[in-house]
Amino acid sequence: MATLASKTIYLKENVDEGLPQPEHFEIRSGEVDLSSIVDGEIVVKALALSADPYLRGTIKSTGSTKAGAPMVGFVSGKVIASKNDKWEVGDLIGASLVFADVQVVSVQLLGATLAWKLTGVIEESEASLGIGILGMPGSTAYGGLIDVLQPKEGQTIFVSAASGAVGSLVGQIAKQVYNCTVIGSAGGPMKCDLLKTKFGYDHAIDYKTMNNEEELSAALKEAAPDGIDMYFENVGGMHFGAAFNALRVGGRIAVCGQISEYNARIPNTVNINPMKMIYSFQRIEGFMCAPWLSGAKGNFLEDMNQWMREGKLAVQETFFEGIDSWVEAFQSLFTGANVGKVVVRVN
Amino acid sequence: MATLASKTIYLKENVDEGLPQPEHFEIRSGEVDLSSIVDGEIVVKALALSADPYLRGTIKSTGSTKAGAPMVGFVSGKVIASKNDKWEVGDLIGASLVFADVQVVSVQLLGATLAWKLTGVIEESEASLGIGILGMPGSTAYGGLIDVLQPKEGQTIFVSAASGAVGSLVGQIAKQVYNCTVIGSAGGPMKCDLLKTKFGYDHAIDYKTMNNEEELSAALKEAAPDGIDMYFENVGGMHFGAAFNALRVGGRIAVCGQISEYNARIPNTVNINPMKMIYSFQRIEGFMCAPWLSGAKGNFLEDMNQWMREGKLAVQETFFEGIDSWVEAFQSLFTGANVGKVVVRVN
Repeated sequence: MATLASKTIYLKENVDEGLPQPEHFEIRSGEVDLSSIVDGEIVVKALALSADPYLRGTIKSTGSTKAGAPMVGFVSGKVIASKNDKWEVGDLIGASLVFADVQVVSVQLLGATLAWKLTGVIEESEASLGIGILGMPGSTAYGGLIDVLQPKEGQTIFVSAASGAVGSLVGQIAKQVYNCTVIGSAGGPMKCDLLKTKFGYDHAIDYKTMNNEEELSAALKEAAPDGIDMYFENVGGMHFGAAFNALRVGGRIAVCGQISEYNARIPNTVNINPMKMIYSFQRIEGFMCAPWLSGAKGNFLEDMNQWMREGKLAVQETFFEGIDSWVEAFQSLFTGANVGKVVVRVN
Repeated sequence: MATLASKTIYLKENVDEGLPQPEHFEIRSGEVDLSSIVDGEIVVKALALSADPYLRGTIKSTGSTKAGAPMVGFVSGKVIASKNDKWEVGDLIGASLVFADVQVVSVQLLGATLAWKLTGVIEESEASLGIGILGMPGSTAYGGLIDVLQPKEGQTIFVSAASGAVGSLVGQIAKQVYNCTVIGSAGGPMKCDLLKTKFGYDHAIDYKTMNNEEELSAALKEAAPDGIDMYFENVGGMHFGAAFNALRVGGRIAVCGQISEYNARIPNTVNINPMKMIYSFQRIEGFMCAPWLSGAKGNFLEDMNQWMREGKLAVQETFFEGIDSWVEAFQSLFTGANVGKVVVRVN
């Protein structure tokens, strides 16, 4: 009997405000019987679980995950049983699934969720890439930069949360593929150093030394005296304001995240001057990764994999070990303890 | 000696706040010697002067027209002398020029300003069209709707200042060419009636009966229970707020004007919720008419003229007679006394 023990992360209570804590979650044990799956189902053994900022919204009372339900997020894993024509045992898979080390994936979920095949693209030992550069963060950076911001050679881009999973890739693609001038904002000297030495940023701004929007604006002005053409928005608050004010004629803002606001019960909105947008032909556009991650738009998996293999894009990961460490990994996104992609390796 | 008497409108003092008054302007008399023009110059006899909301910004201290300088705006007229290869005597011209009944246009100005040939497109008796449907307002409606908003058949659009020079055309193109559901906002029952009987709007909202954004939102919800796909923004304030909140997944806002704010010393800005823009793939984009009016983008003059001649687009004009009536015409834009395009006919 091929029955495997499994562990699944559940949300114990919704968290509307503040940093989520271990007591808000619990891990339940169960078992998965590989021989009991029905037509269309597969069993996935997780190799890596993702910790992403967007999950903060899903665990609020208003979010998609209710108290008592299992946590759902991006998983990179291996198919260990299959009654589905599209998936073979041994396939490497990236997908939005339940956070469990072993799970049966129903045919309904497989049809509805984002799932992409990583077989032939990565080795099993590289599974973490499937939740990073070759998963949601990678496709977010790819689609947001290429199709939303539409960079032109020589233009200037400002990226916030620039050392994070998405920002570190945005800056590198902008530099390596589009030859842009790249300015990044990150928290603390270590991350700022990494921006310049590892990710090829031309300028690094340590936002933790800035007390308000005016100071951030001054730092941005020093890095880009003639203003910026593009802003990749991950943060919100003073970052949005400073970037909007620095935006040149024809400037555009890709709105991807607002991490500075995620722990607030009611996130702050931002202010824009419509007259400036008119006279300067400026655009602000919100987006999520789905069109690029699903392959409906662009050529994400192939392009990113190629750029990575050619050495154009450096991968930076922060590892946490074991499914029990997921809450700690998730917290690191908000405390700034992370660099690059936060990965929970599952054994 | 072909010397003609001329009258020119000058700005006497900059107006930072409130409704501009006759005493802020003066008309000076002069003369133009047709035989004295040099190579590259032309002489234009104005047939119609435009009164447009954007001019309000140009006469502030921060604007492009300084106290003591002649007013500059859109003029439709006839070339009555020419030493320029591109223009013949008798040509009909639309251009951004000095507000004068007769003027010499220098080669420098002709090279720098927006100017388009209306010969063969309209008759001299139709000159007002050159500052309306076949001029700045027409190209603003055309470019803003077609290229910025990118309507799809069956989608819903909300237009503010919907009975104005730009709004009345936006609604008609959306209805007649793209088969959209069209909702307009205008001030008072007469204009709202016109929206439905002349411009083909499906729903008309009388914003003067609304006390705040909540009431406008409720009216918009009644007209479009499932929300709107597009908003053509001419007004600002509560109109922007209500439209932003009603915006559906994939929604976009073309920002063209903010007339509710033009008489304020410091115009109000607007608030947006970036998270809504992310999860709903929404876009806000500012623009002006230049790329379409100049022909750099699209096929404005040909398309609009064809749609008008086919009877798809009705033209609505409010006439004022004589250059001396320009201030009164300009005031009508802000007091709501105008319908459609405000035209000052010059004899």
